[in-house]
Amino acid sequence: MIDHKRIGCPKLRAKVTSAEEAVKHITHGCTVGMSGFTGSGYPKAVPLALAARIEAEYTAGNPFRVSVWTGASTGPELDGALARANGIEFRLPYNSDPIAREKINRGEMNYFDMHLSQVAPVAWQGFLGPLDVALVEVVGIREDGLLIPSSSVGNNKTWLDRASKIILEVNSWQNPALEGMHDIYYGTALPPNRVPIPLVRADDRIGQPYFRCDPDKVVAVVETDVPDRNLPFTAPDDVAKRIAGHLLEFFQHEVKKGRLPENLLPLQSGVGNIANAVLTGLLDGPFENMTAYTEVIQDGMLDLLDCGKLRMASATAFSLSPEAATTLNANMERYRNKMILRPQEISNHPELIRRLGCLAMNGMIEADIYGNVNSTHVMGSRIQNGIGGSGDFARNAYVSIFVTPSTAKGGKISAIVPQASHVDHINQDVQVIVTEYGLADLRGLSPKQRAKTIIENCAHPDYQPALADYFRRAQENSYGLHSPCLLDESLSWHQRFVKTGSMRA
Amino acid sequence: MIDHKRIGCPKLRAKVTSAEEAVKHITHGCTVGMSGFTGSGYPKAVPLALAARIEAEYTAGNPFRVSVWTGASTGPELDGALARANGIEFRLPYNSDPIAREKINRGEMNYFDMHLSQVAPVAWQGFLGPLDVALVEVVGIREDGLLIPSSSVGNNKTWLDRASKIILEVNSWQNPALEGMHDIYYGTALPPNRVPIPLVRADDRIGQPYFRCDPDKVVAVVETDVPDRNLPFTAPDDVAKRIAGHLLEFFQHEVKKGRLPENLLPLQSGVGNIANAVLTGLLDGPFENMTAYTEVIQDGMLDLLDCGKLRMASATAFSLSPEAATTLNANMERYRNKMILRPQEISNHPELIRRLGCLAMNGMIEADIYGNVNSTHVMGSRIQNGIGGSGDFARNAYVSIFVTPSTAKGGKISAIVPQASHVDHINQDVQVIVTEYGLADLRGLSPKQRAKTIIENCAHPDYQPALADYFRRAQENSYGLHSPCLLDESLSWHQRFVKTGSMRA
Repeated sequence: MIDHKRIGCPKLRAKVTSAEEAVKHITHGCTVGMSGFTGSGYPKAVPLALAARIEAEYTAGNPFRVSVWTGASTGPELDGALARANGIEFRLPYNSDPIAREKINRGEMNYFDMHLSQVAPVAWQGFLGPLDVALVEVVGIREDGLLIPSSSVGNNKTWLDRASKIILEVNSWQNPALEGMHDIYYGTALPPNRVPIPLVRADDRIGQPYFRCDPDKVVAVVETDVPDRNLPFTAPDDVAKRIAGHLLEFFQHEVKKGRLPENLLPLQSGVGNIANAVLTGLLDGPFENMTAYTEVIQDGMLDLLDCGKLRMASATAFSLSPEAATTLNANMERYRNKMILRPQEISNHPELIRRLGCLAMNGMIEADIYGNVNSTHVMGSRIQNGIGGSGDFARNAYVSIFVTPSTAKGGKISAIVPQASHVDHINQDVQVIVTEYGLADLRGLSPKQRAKTIIENCAHPDYQPALADYFRRAQENSYGLHSPCLLDESLSWHQRFVKTGSMRA
Repeated sequence: MIDHKRIGCPKLRAKVTSAEEAVKHITHGCTVGMSGFTGSGYPKAVPLALAARIEAEYTAGNPFRVSVWTGASTGPELDGALARANGIEFRLPYNSDPIAREKINRGEMNYFDMHLSQVAPVAWQGFLGPLDVALVEVVGIREDGLLIPSSSVGNNKTWLDRASKIILEVNSWQNPALEGMHDIYYGTALPPNRVPIPLVRADDRIGQPYFRCDPDKVVAVVETDVPDRNLPFTAPDDVAKRIAGHLLEFFQHEVKKGRLPENLLPLQSGVGNIANAVLTGLLDGPFENMTAYTEVIQDGMLDLLDCGKLRMASATAFSLSPEAATTLNANMERYRNKMILRPQEISNHPELIRRLGCLAMNGMIEADIYGNVNSTHVMGSRIQNGIGGSGDFARNAYVSIFVTPSTAKGGKISAIVPQASHVDHINQDVQVIVTEYGLADLRGLSPKQRAKTIIENCAHPDYQPALADYFRRAQENSYGLHSPCLLDESLSWHQRFVKTGSMRA
């Protein structure tokens, strides 16, 4: 049942229309800034109507492509539908939609994979050109015209401020108790007018709970009642549990050494099953009164909040399984004071990550023996998702940790390779690597010391001898011996995989 | 003539001794935190005495190696002498000494190449182990025991605070008018106690002009009268002038577009001849009232200060030619109010670089067609100098620019290659690349758009057809087409150089 209950502002209520009408404001060549971050809070109706319109225009022989800016990944009704319709000319800053990924990797879509903290500032700097339309999902519109943000904040503040026209989707599926959970900071500026961001604890509120919105720019309001795309998490398997175990042991060791406080430091956890498993592992750990300053709130964090070990979590979006979303929706009041959702330029701000001293835990595709990490490009050329916020966190973390199973594709790919086929995180930004076989603490080590540690502690036994052999021969035959490499062999594992389907010799 | 005039504190004057006596406080296995940043402000006497002692111990059949932490590169009396004596077990965070470089590349010295902003915090975090001795050059010691910093600040504050024992070198060669030029910020802390750094303009002073120093920790004071190592700059050649010209044109274009203020934004300029040439180019440019927020003050900045186009410069050290050093020394009063020297954790702090919106201009060894930059490893394995502050600035700059001649070694090496043999700056952190052939503005471009622009605008004509051919074939045969690459060919240019001495086919 859709009603106008959620639209308190008369001026905006007068603009309620259908998605099909709303989409007429989007034309060929437009740049559209959309809400959405890891499948939460993205617009659900207008993108579908846009895809239909694009297909109709193509049928009529007319071109129709748009540039799409978002917070991060979205849902099948947005990236999936628009990519299928071949309607995206240019996409930023992060994608995990399989259809869009396929288009990108076939060379049919231009994808600009950015640090998530930098999207809003770069949009303000004007380097990306004008933003024609903002298309933003909200939970409701107050009588005074302020907007109640949805289950993700992302870059919405910036899209609303920068766009010439605004289309709002008011989604009744979102729990109205979300109101008050958000903290929208309006103190950003372009240099030379930037000032310190006054956040010193993960639970500080420095902004307001609502988006400002110029009602004159709003060209359409569309009502929806559609769930977020909530993907199930797989239960932690043995590999994930062993990774979590190594990491817990490391944290305990660091606390014992006096290098971490007893309640640790604010946790950041990347998106995905392994990251979620680590959070689940913390349920059984000895750490109390923890906080999280991270991108997304996942299932594991809800459990930690439930048991009280996690005092609060700051993020820019929810990224929950259907079960966890149901639990959250049913108990929003209980969680509301323990969560803050912020713009991603704040959740991922280097200034704040460094100040807070986050413990960054991110997944990866592969690391080389020196600890250079590839998070994005399978075999050096094929984009998986994108760098997301991993660079924001890894470069500025108190301890930057990368976790991965030691192999992929049933053992045919080793996550530890002689040379990374693409680099997203340079060795200086990678302090700890963890696989199910062990943890490599790389802090203060020179390249060759790092290589020895990674090969011994992290490599899968099936690949360890070959890595050790490569490293030994590299130390005999390399051009330089600071970071020894054999140029004619360093990418041979990837070549072999592309040719034979396996990195095994 | 050495006298005690510069040592106002009676308690410390009583500790004046010879370098040979002082060095007895440094023993085998010690970790020594030394002053010094790009050849300025490093200790000149005790390291030589240490090298002599190491050689004597070796002669007597005893082991003697130390770990050396500095600000950045130093002088031949420090890194050169100690490396020659084979006395360095471990070295951080940056080196440009040719003897030390050779030791590192022969695999005989462990070198930990760090982001310069992170040295002090990581030392405080305790990950590097204890610091036994601080060995710091100062201009003088006040009666109250406060230390007047020298021609570089580097990590001295941290070394003095962290070390168990302190050895001071008081260098009469340094101009006493340096007093008052420094700004030593004592507001840093470890998380969870970090607060915003209250600097909002390049010329803000947020600290005090002196180092604190616990006199009870001082075990020796050594008097010296020795010049800094000042290396001559080569006059800008035609290549450097053309690079500077492209960059000036770019800045003018950005001002015209309203994307940069008329006085630009605070300049950061890496160390070296090309960087210096760009500064020299600004002498003839239309920009007035500029500021610099950078690592080192080079010759070109003095000229810009002289003509008034540069209002002030903030850095952590001087890096001057002998002529410029003489000029500065003779006119220190005139320059003093236009310069601020800070700890490198402040000069290079990501929080401040992003807030100020620095225009970062750094050199490099090579960039690949996607704009991943290698600043450190020749042919992927041989360290040149180190990453220095380039990562601090490039990741956080308003515009991150990398400059290089299009070829090296008389044309035998192309600075633009199919794949970087090592990555220090990921493509997301590289917005503009400039060679003498042109400028590639990569902002907002997808990987393939970047490749086209870099090949067309920056490559040397001798290599351009081969790059274009590689890119064309990669788009036909790559595993994925987001960042197309041919794994069995992408490092072949480097292989060819190692085998034949030239990248030319």
